[in-house]
Amino acid sequence: MARDPIPPTVSWRLGRVRLIDQRALPQRLRYVDCTTTAELVGAIRDLVVRGAPALGASGAYGVALAAHARTRRVQVRSDAARLREARPTAVNLAHGVDHALAAFEHGGASAALAAAKAYAEADVAVNRALGAHGAALVPDQGRVLTHCNAGALACVGYGTAIGVIRAAAEAGKQPRVWVDETRPVLQGARLTAWELDQLGIAHTIVVDGAAGSLMARGEVDLIVVGADRVAANGDVANKIGTYPLAVLAYHHRIPFVVAAPRSTIDFATPDGAAIVVEDRPEQEVLTVGGVPLAPQGSSAANPAFDVTPAALVHAIVTEDGVITKPSPRVLARLAPSREKGPE
Amino acid sequence: MARDPIPPTVSWRLGRVRLIDQRALPQRLRYVDCTTTAELVGAIRDLVVRGAPALGASGAYGVALAAHARTRRVQVRSDAARLREARPTAVNLAHGVDHALAAFEHGGASAALAAAKAYAEADVAVNRALGAHGAALVPDQGRVLTHCNAGALACVGYGTAIGVIRAAAEAGKQPRVWVDETRPVLQGARLTAWELDQLGIAHTIVVDGAAGSLMARGEVDLIVVGADRVAANGDVANKIGTYPLAVLAYHHRIPFVVAAPRSTIDFATPDGAAIVVEDRPEQEVLTVGGVPLAPQGSSAANPAFDVTPAALVHAIVTEDGVITKPSPRVLARLAPSREKGPE
Repeated sequence: MARDPIPPTVSWRLGRVRLIDQRALPQRLRYVDCTTTAELVGAIRDLVVRGAPALGASGAYGVALAAHARTRRVQVRSDAARLREARPTAVNLAHGVDHALAAFEHGGASAALAAAKAYAEADVAVNRALGAHGAALVPDQGRVLTHCNAGALACVGYGTAIGVIRAAAEAGKQPRVWVDETRPVLQGARLTAWELDQLGIAHTIVVDGAAGSLMARGEVDLIVVGADRVAANGDVANKIGTYPLAVLAYHHRIPFVVAAPRSTIDFATPDGAAIVVEDRPEQEVLTVGGVPLAPQGSSAANPAFDVTPAALVHAIVTEDGVITKPSPRVLARLAPSREKGPE
Repeated sequence: MARDPIPPTVSWRLGRVRLIDQRALPQRLRYVDCTTTAELVGAIRDLVVRGAPALGASGAYGVALAAHARTRRVQVRSDAARLREARPTAVNLAHGVDHALAAFEHGGASAALAAAKAYAEADVAVNRALGAHGAALVPDQGRVLTHCNAGALACVGYGTAIGVIRAAAEAGKQPRVWVDETRPVLQGARLTAWELDQLGIAHTIVVDGAAGSLMARGEVDLIVVGADRVAANGDVANKIGTYPLAVLAYHHRIPFVVAAPRSTIDFATPDGAAIVVEDRPEQEVLTVGGVPLAPQGSSAANPAFDVTPAALVHAIVTEDGVITKPSPRVLARLAPSREKGPE
């Protein structure tokens, strides 16, 4: 398999957690090395690392870091609790923390690190499988619109929504991508455009408000986005601005597809109404790159995510395959208890 | 009547056309004085002045400027033609030019200037009438979402969509405004927020992608926007990002209202498909305030407007009143031939 042109988003490096600094992209590819869980929690809150699967791996490595640096078991548990709460919406963060913490409880620091490494490696394998399934939904020379960044940078590698697009490209389908810039943090213009550049996939950036007229003009064949949390009934929390795309896709009969690993489905959350949507600092809206946009003293609301009802979702793609018309019954087949078999 | 806290957007000043420099707001209130029509055409293209009614007045004053500076009639006509084509989508620009040019043909430079001044004064009176009609649609303490800037700065004064909101405020209704920031040029965050600040009307800025979840959460009672051109069948061209709001409003059964003077209705354009949508430079998308957002060499599409079909428009408000469910038949009652009476 060809070497990935995008280095891993999260990795373990000589007792530190190394993160690609996603705030510096696309201008510079630089790294932040976290030596304590407090540093890692800060990096997560400041969006050095973001994206549900990448947060999962960061959480797992964070527990390994705590186990490495702390002498008392109770300290490791308390660090794990802080990591778990660094951001509220992506369910994967808690999953990653719990995965490595369970290993730690059984086998100490070395087991926690091994679990974190396995978690990170599995992420890439899962995304390749997911991409291969999703690529079947991309028409030849299809014009695919995506929002935010659900690429390698949102994961450990390969990507979910962008994983679908790159798997289609690897299969020779020559997709062309509309990249929503994705205000306020511009993950589309900064990160998705950077990844597609690295991958040599044709793409054009548009402001978020332009997606509607692209659809009206018949210039979009498919919409693919990632997810921060999928509720048990198929409702999807994802980056703010996703829900309007789903409504527009429904209006224009364009398939709206969610690409997410099975670990993003939260069977403990019955529906979208139960998902906590993070409100982020208003400065993200009121400034860009330190440049103030609005009058001094203006106030802004900054909900970081929105919730798309399952009824607007054409399909959810996981590493297990494509689930069309997601429903609680169909999703329940993916629930963890099923994996374990009879006990 | 209280003095307007916002100075006129376009005015005549000692043989020059004076424009508020809308690129400098909200940081600085400064002016650009144009001494030639070439300068004025450049200012229009660079968005020193924007907004359909303001472009109309700029076109009228531009002809007065040509008539003032040029010695030969043919030069004035050729300057008028250049002004007319400075931007393609707003119909008012051509109207304003034609209005002053007709006066010039009959009465020379002084007639052109008198016609331009009358055109500009009429704009404010029209907007006050429009605002009074539209205010009836705003509920008490209504939460009103607006896009772009259809305020005093988009006109000579008072505003169209913001005219509706301020008339509601003047009637004691205490509206609260959601301001879409309106990428790429940020007319919402920069100009609408500034105007509402000057007027003391409560408002909160959101990114364009957040409007959908505000509607889903029941936090929007009414959407009011302006228009750059209304076709004879009621289709509405307005700032990019307007059409998604109309689709979302339809989905959530929230009234979507267009506030525009009668002069914005173009009876020569049968429907939205016949409206030329301006494509603007990609640098507007790829940078903010000189700060690059995307990877170097990225390409962007930048359609400046979109078209909302009449079927999604709850009402069009003009100086004549509120037209609900706009149709070619109902709109035809406002056609200029009707005004003139039998000939």
